[in-house]
Amino acid sequence: MKKETLHIVKIGGNVINNEEALTSFLKDFSELEGFKILVHGGGNRATEIASEMGLKPKMIQGRRVTDETNLEVVTMVYAGLLNKNITAQLQQNNCNALGLSGADANCMLAHKRIVKDIDYGFAGDIDAVNSEIINVFLQNNITPVFCAITHDKKGQLLNTNADTIASEIAIAMSELFHVQLNYVFELKGVLETIEDENSVIKDINLDKYEQLIEQRIISNGMIPKLHNCFNALKKGVQKVKIGDASLIKSTNKLYTTLTI
Amino acid sequence: MKKETLHIVKIGGNVINNEEALTSFLKDFSELEGFKILVHGGGNRATEIASEMGLKPKMIQGRRVTDETNLEVVTMVYAGLLNKNITAQLQQNNCNALGLSGADANCMLAHKRIVKDIDYGFAGDIDAVNSEIINVFLQNNITPVFCAITHDKKGQLLNTNADTIASEIAIAMSELFHVQLNYVFELKGVLETIEDENSVIKDINLDKYEQLIEQRIISNGMIPKLHNCFNALKKGVQKVKIGDASLIKSTNKLYTTLTI
Repeated sequence: MKKETLHIVKIGGNVINNEEALTSFLKDFSELEGFKILVHGGGNRATEIASEMGLKPKMIQGRRVTDETNLEVVTMVYAGLLNKNITAQLQQNNCNALGLSGADANCMLAHKRIVKDIDYGFAGDIDAVNSEIINVFLQNNITPVFCAITHDKKGQLLNTNADTIASEIAIAMSELFHVQLNYVFELKGVLETIEDENSVIKDINLDKYEQLIEQRIISNGMIPKLHNCFNALKKGVQKVKIGDASLIKSTNKLYTTLTI
Repeated sequence: MKKETLHIVKIGGNVINNEEALTSFLKDFSELEGFKILVHGGGNRATEIASEMGLKPKMIQGRRVTDETNLEVVTMVYAGLLNKNITAQLQQNNCNALGLSGADANCMLAHKRIVKDIDYGFAGDIDAVNSEIINVFLQNNITPVFCAITHDKKGQLLNTNADTIASEIAIAMSELFHVQLNYVFELKGVLETIEDENSVIKDINLDKYEQLIEQRIISNGMIPKLHNCFNALKKGVQKVKIGDASLIKSTNKLYTTLTI
């Protein structure tokens, strides 16, 4: 049986931090036809709220650590403020959104990251995505909207990387659907020359990816993002696209497509 | 066809504010067999967080008003912090909880309260409960967990009374189920004598209710609560019980049962 297409779109801080950009993106997302899932990162609202509460970000060796108080803040901001406002806006656009954390209906199970060199605190690494229940939602005309909070089924919520959430959901859902994974970020795609915002490399396959790393065209921040993408492609995801907020508009032609 | 039983349980501040009481209640709730829904109020965590953020509660004529900043705080605390922690704890107990606001899957539609004498700000009055989608969740072995946030389908979230949410959900679900509505509060039931915590009036019907108001045995705070209950009973809910956190334990015999 031919699988139906499922679009999974991940948005990050650059869309979430700008009210106008978010509203415009959510309008485009609502118009996307067929099965779809949204995954959103946190943006800087959590840092702002933490600062209003007199909290300072906890850093160890330049890495942000999720201590108990910070976990409270990200749970409030990601799963509460952002997730419910995004859901309400999508509902306004007649997109039947359902806001979810990993704890809800046990959608995503994770474990607290094992301490090696650095103790990241309440950071979660995903063990399992519940594709069965996500499919129940989709088949009932629901659009799941995931925030970056998971749980360990021992009562502990965990702060989890939204890029990884998107790729893990994409991998799990690829058993049931023809999955297209879309990463919306601050650039129009993977750039040939960082100074030229239009120098988008339109197609990257695994060979080209390794070549670009060797040539140092793909730099530090981009490597884990692309690593996530190729991991998803290797595990069954059909296609990955990376670009700015116009990525999901049918009129947009400038973005990077990844394939293996 | 004989309808199956659905238990709807509403908990308020007295359970939520006490970590031990909450954990113990959630254990009992998890053990409740069959279809069930949890509705939770806010407790005092929202006031604490607001105060940590340097915000003062806005009061007009002794009534709390939900302004824009307060709405942000209650959305964070009710839909984020409390709802997800309750959900994660229920998951730990193998109760397949799904945390929901009214915006999620358009479960509860409300409108901003009409300004008459007092402008309550972003307070919502419920117009519709989506019994169809709630039933889809229940039939898929999911236990919905509602926080006291609704939406107007115009993108606006609204702070909504949790007692009313519980009774409106109970009324809507009574078309499909034999509904038992349970209100957990700080007392063992409706009391004959406020000084004697064990002077629980075991059964109240509509006649007795009017009689108790006349005799001033039921006082100010209790009247809207019981009004909600009788409204639910008149509109199809089978039975309403009021009592303390042990209400849902099969061993507990001391509570008030309302019927019409």
